[in-house]
Amino acid sequence: MTMEKGISSVEVLPSKSSQVTAVKVVVKEPETKQTQRGKRVGFVLVHAGAGYHSESKAKEYKHVCKRACQKAIEKLQAGALATDAVTAALIELEDSPFTNAGMGSNLNLLGEIECDASIMDGKSLNFGAVGALSGIKNPVSVANRLLCEGQKGKLSAGRIPPCFLVGEGAFRWAVDHGIPACPPGFSLAAFKRNKRKLELAEKVETDLIQLKKRRQSNEKGSRVMCRTCGRPSRANDGSRGGDQIELYSLENDSGTLDTVGAVVVDQEGNVAAAVSSGGLALKHPGRVGQAALYGCGCWAENTGAHTPYSTAVSTSGCGEHLVRTILARECSCALQTEDAHQALLETMQNKFIGSPFLANEDGVLGGVIVLRSCRCSAEPELSQEKPTLLVEFLWSHTTESMCVGYMSAQDGKAKTHISRLPPGAVAGQSVAIEGGVCRLESPES
Amino acid sequence: MTMEKGISSVEVLPSKSSQVTAVKVVVKEPETKQTQRGKRVGFVLVHAGAGYHSESKAKEYKHVCKRACQKAIEKLQAGALATDAVTAALIELEDSPFTNAGMGSNLNLLGEIECDASIMDGKSLNFGAVGALSGIKNPVSVANRLLCEGQKGKLSAGRIPPCFLVGEGAFRWAVDHGIPACPPGFSLAAFKRNKRKLELAEKVETDLIQLKKRRQSNEKGSRVMCRTCGRPSRANDGSRGGDQIELYSLENDSGTLDTVGAVVVDQEGNVAAAVSSGGLALKHPGRVGQAALYGCGCWAENTGAHTPYSTAVSTSGCGEHLVRTILARECSCALQTEDAHQALLETMQNKFIGSPFLANEDGVLGGVIVLRSCRCSAEPELSQEKPTLLVEFLWSHTTESMCVGYMSAQDGKAKTHISRLPPGAVAGQSVAIEGGVCRLESPES
Repeated sequence: MTMEKGISSVEVLPSKSSQVTAVKVVVKEPETKQTQRGKRVGFVLVHAGAGYHSESKAKEYKHVCKRACQKAIEKLQAGALATDAVTAALIELEDSPFTNAGMGSNLNLLGEIECDASIMDGKSLNFGAVGALSGIKNPVSVANRLLCEGQKGKLSAGRIPPCFLVGEGAFRWAVDHGIPACPPGFSLAAFKRNKRKLELAEKVETDLIQLKKRRQSNEKGSRVMCRTCGRPSRANDGSRGGDQIELYSLENDSGTLDTVGAVVVDQEGNVAAAVSSGGLALKHPGRVGQAALYGCGCWAENTGAHTPYSTAVSTSGCGEHLVRTILARECSCALQTEDAHQALLETMQNKFIGSPFLANEDGVLGGVIVLRSCRCSAEPELSQEKPTLLVEFLWSHTTESMCVGYMSAQDGKAKTHISRLPPGAVAGQSVAIEGGVCRLESPES
Repeated sequence: MTMEKGISSVEVLPSKSSQVTAVKVVVKEPETKQTQRGKRVGFVLVHAGAGYHSESKAKEYKHVCKRACQKAIEKLQAGALATDAVTAALIELEDSPFTNAGMGSNLNLLGEIECDASIMDGKSLNFGAVGALSGIKNPVSVANRLLCEGQKGKLSAGRIPPCFLVGEGAFRWAVDHGIPACPPGFSLAAFKRNKRKLELAEKVETDLIQLKKRRQSNEKGSRVMCRTCGRPSRANDGSRGGDQIELYSLENDSGTLDTVGAVVVDQEGNVAAAVSSGGLALKHPGRVGQAALYGCGCWAENTGAHTPYSTAVSTSGCGEHLVRTILARECSCALQTEDAHQALLETMQNKFIGSPFLANEDGVLGGVIVLRSCRCSAEPELSQEKPTLLVEFLWSHTTESMCVGYMSAQDGKAKTHISRLPPGAVAGQSVAIEGGVCRLESPES
């Protein structure tokens, strides 16, 4: 992999939205060292959530990202297509107890795990998704299987195969298609691992009762702290003031981050994207977030008649914010213009933080990883040269931090990074953006 | 209401997609009679599905559309906002045994009813949706309640209120919020009403068994007929050939049409849209279609900084086709250009039938109703004149037929119409489009 100069020189754009108070642009330094270890080309970029990553657990976050990259690259090196590689990365991310996905997910109000996941194939443009799914270790496997089954044509009686299943029906479909339910004892193990999260839920209930008692003698409740970024949140209006409790001390350093995801380009230039989430802690049972929703959680689209670039996007953060802005698809559309870095920054500023669909929100919390690729000649003047795959990769977030990892099939190991907003920047109102470019050479035959 | 000249003169556009073989453009004749019955202004357009409406049941389809319009107008005349009026129309449509929504819904593979519904408010841009919901008579009521609760601010512990709930969780939430579960015996009544549909399901199973036996002696299965439009479908490939059965005789004239919906503008110029569906007959339990999905089933957006027109859209047809094209939002975006008729036609041709996301489909089946409005003076030279509300309304479909009704608050009764593709046009490959314009005068004080 040859790391080229970063996507742009240091460039701080004027704020286009009154909500944007600071813009941090960090540009990767170019690398010149060339490695040629794998026989296949391909690239993966993963994230372990946009939210708040404590320094004390940074090692674990990076480690799971590294392993997820390696799993995807192993698949690519074995000749797998992008969808299989992205699924392999997601399974590794879901299996970590440090991520909010799979069996490490946040618990809902009933103390249960309900997961959302989806996958999109840039080649076929097919999509598979599950929502509010319980009892399956790797929700992304079910989403991928829905995608695969959808490509086989119509079902009996001319019925169109489903691309999105939820709840008990999704569980039954998975089991009917050979995806095993969690083995006996697995749920118990997960429960133990999540015990602290359950205790959190119980503490919230206790706090609520105490708060109601306090409220009888004092109309003003205590201050709300944002569960995602830890900063003080705007006080609610009187209609719900009685429900306000202090969550900062409970949530901070809890390790309960958000959605995980990955984007991949394979040796044929196909792109794929996937996303998986346990959703908000203490969510209402049956709540489905962006990770299951078309256009919101992930997007992948190979180059076509109207799309000069292949693009893949995966999102993380506050589900409702990502849904209302259909952010994954919005990013993909924007990336068809020449300057990927500028396009993504403007999208995060104008279509996310500045979105009229989130005008009433006091902070807009989310992050994206994006990848775009096109075939080109490394040295155009040499017409005999084999075309190479130019891959631009970026991550951007409005949350305090975002943990990412990336690797090409020609690399020895993955690189990982925890991206943070600069000191003084306000989460929900500022954008951090970083990324790089690599040129993947044709595989040795 | 003063009916003006239709949106355009008869105008047959050249096909822009190779899949489009015929375009029918029917233009409403202008009306000059002016009625002033109501004291409030407002307009509603409803549909009872894009699919196949038999002549023998035309009266019933039209009647339910008429009643739905009247319910919405009664609300508007009482001063209700667009969201309440559109909900009233949907409840009437859901309660009809002739529509595929609410308790008249298609049954899934287990003989159960599972409904999808959603609503969007153009003023707040808020959205509420339910998916795979059982046991509630009017799913749209739950979607509307989710929308209303979402506008009240954050829940306890700083949690963002859900906008999309599915399955058992959605049912519990509804009951917790005072929406009654179906009364005892109601399910039985619904079951009896749907008995013929269940028999259809059982016959399909029997046919499948017989077909497998026949297949053992003959590799070629019988021909697939499209369940939505009744026309012969492209033969499936060998991988699923054994599942092919003739459905035409079973589905034709079955009265099991698709999604219902409505779009409304109220006296303040706010728009709202809603949609409700029982989904595909014999769908897999847990399958969620476009009626629950943001951007796919409905869209409403008041005029704003970047949107000169207020727009509202509701879709119907093959859920997966409407999801992949995010058709409701696509139509809304297109309607911001000057010529609404042309914009909608091009969207149906290029972004639906010609969509790269449906390139592998042999027919693209769907329909939309759209409304757009803006404030203007009836006679601009008279600066003293009160501004009026100019409402353009259109329906367009690629299915055999679509049943619509429309009414203004100043009308005595609703108009209804079953729009059909012209003879010889192929469903799934051709577009029909019709509509009109009305100018709503300011209410008498």
